[in-house]
Amino acid sequence: MDSNKRTIRVEWGDCDPAGIIFNARYFEIFDAATAALFESALGMTKREMLATYQIAGIPLVHTRVNFMRPARFGDDITVESTIEFGRASFQVAHRVTLNAAVCAEGSETRVWVVRDSQGALKSSPIPAAVLEKFGVGLGTPTSSGNATITANRNKRIDHSQRG
Amino acid sequence: MDSNKRTIRVEWGDCDPAGIIFNARYFEIFDAATAALFESALGMTKREMLATYQIAGIPLVHTRVNFMRPARFGDDITVESTIEFGRASFQVAHRVTLNAAVCAEGSETRVWVVRDSQGALKSSPIPAAVLEKFGVGLGTPTSSGNATITANRNKRIDHSQRG
Amino acid sequence: MDSNKRTIRVEWGDCDPAGIIFNARYFEIFDAATAALFESALGMTKREMLATYQIAGIPLVHTRVNFMRPARFGDDITVESTIEFGRASFQVAHRVTLNAAVCAEGSETRVWVVRDSQGALKSSPIPAAVLEKFGVGLGTPTSSGNATITANRNKRIDHSQRG
Amino acid sequence: MDSNKRTIRVEWGDCDPAGIIFNARYFEIFDAATAALFESALGMTKREMLATYQIAGIPLVHTRVNFMRPARFGDDITVESTIEFGRASFQVAHRVTLNAAVCAEGSETRVWVVRDSQGALKSSPIPAAVLEKFGVGLGTPTSSGNATITANRNKRIDHSQRG
Repeated sequence: MDSNKRTIRVEWGDCDPAGIIFNARYFEIFDAATAALFESALGMTKREMLATYQIAGIPLVHTRVNFMRPARFGDDITVESTIEFGRASFQVAHRVTLNAAVCAEGSETRVWVVRDSQGALKSSPIPAAVLEKFGVGLGTPTSSGNATITANRNKRIDHSQRG
Repeated sequence: MDSNKRTIRVEWGDCDPAGIIFNARYFEIFDAATAALFESALGMTKREMLATYQIAGIPLVHTRVNFMRPARFGDDITVESTIEFGRASFQVAHRVTLNAAVCAEGSETRVWVVRDSQGALKSSPIPAAVLEKFGVGLGTPTSSGNATITANRNKRIDHSQRG
Repeated sequence: MDSNKRTIRVEWGDCDPAGIIFNARYFEIFDAATAALFESALGMTKREMLATYQIAGIPLVHTRVNFMRPARFGDDITVESTIEFGRASFQVAHRVTLNAAVCAEGSETRVWVVRDSQGALKSSPIPAAVLEKFGVGLGTPTSSGNATITANRNKRIDHSQRG
Repeated sequence: MDSNKRTIRVEWGDCDPAGIIFNARYFEIFDAATAALFESALGMTKREMLATYQIAGIPLVHTRVNFMRPARFGDDITVESTIEFGRASFQVAHRVTLNAAVCAEGSETRVWVVRDSQGALKSSPIPAAVLEKFGVGLGTPTSSGNATITANRNKRIDHSQRG
């Protein structure tokens, strides 16, 4: 439940004059892959997730990506995404492959964000109901594995305060 | 010569349903800012640079960005970019501010890339003529690594003032 | 007041593997050009315009574009935009040139849109205060010129009904 | 063979601050849909098609779209595309629906383009081998239907001359 895999066609319009995927497109792909991971676990689209949990979004606060091998239009790349939860934030690792060779490997740190009474965005603890759907028990100490939340539980990444 | 500054309007079409700039747009902004930095130093557009130095591009191999504060459509953000050269690669640090508050801070590692006889992309040493335009002297003893621009590090070029 | 002109650099990331601007980028350019036209007339950004006039946006309902000549990365294209008002809609004609040669010529029909009590988008008459800023007098019969509203006044393009 | 149908998820990053798909995204969708139509008929990707038929691309020279109903992130829209061939150009009609309601309806006119000896883009007759894959016989008078080439055969849309 804590990982997801999807295949994406690299389109002509995703590519630059060198004929390879333009780097910014990867971040659109990662954004959609993270949404797909939540949809797969929660059984609802991102729009339904925002309405159900009354959040404004899951904005990116940090990303880091290595690009190893170019993909070209017509290529079908595979994106594997794995999530790890903190208290109000989570990390998603994305691994993009083309015919088993790694094209890009990166990670996103995102925050569970609500709007305060003034309309400003601020982080909020990820609901237990969400964690459970990913198979993460709040009371369960997890010593390893992708879904561990213990390591990051006390380290709050507060988007609004850092802003 | 090793840095550049420009102001960019965040447009409606750059923003997501939360009303803030969609993260992938930052990478388009960084890509253009890096091209502007070369244009400012070399006195030619990226297209002319590719033709003059017979390269296929300067693709991204690594990036790392922290997003601190959201920018919204209608905001004029400032991007300051600073370059440091290695042998066949270079690093560009980008700092995005809105009214003096930092919105995002990141870095790109890019490679000077040519096509080999089979058409594949491969890295190639950055020509001395390019380094000289950035004020990086080949005869300057640099002990190692990327930081070969110490001589000009304090000299800042402000793109917006230059028109 | 009813027209606006701006120069835009075509970036590497705007171009496709043929090295020319990818067609979808033109629509981002047009969208921004229309926002700039309103900003120029109203003296406020689109975000301020949405807040001031309590609208949800000015979505496109029809567009038509001829692409005559490719623009390439490094080119500085000029976009001239001219507006004509209807009752709840308006037309913007965009003309893109590169060194005086026409690259693209098109038009957008957009609707002045509010949210109804259920949150659905629906068209609404363009306020007189907006028309006045464009120099369009509601009671003034205008026989010619770009800012005439008489011709289209009775032809309502209702986005919500067509939906 | 002359039409194609695909379902596309509207992503968060495709949508604007009104929460609906940003209009420029439709043109990316149409571009990919046209490529898919050729892939379906020719049994090869666009990259293979460019290599096989030695063309530079199939650039857009005219488009016209009506947007009837907004789609939002999380929506799965269906794009049906139908092609009609001319001599060196073709028209693709795209119809986008969401739960059987039409969201957008438009058409593209594109040109079969090669590079001349100076590297400039110019139109070229669509090969009979391509037309045959779409079930369009060159010698076969077709009186009606989507795949007719007779109607447009003599009307050459020459991109290079119009530029």
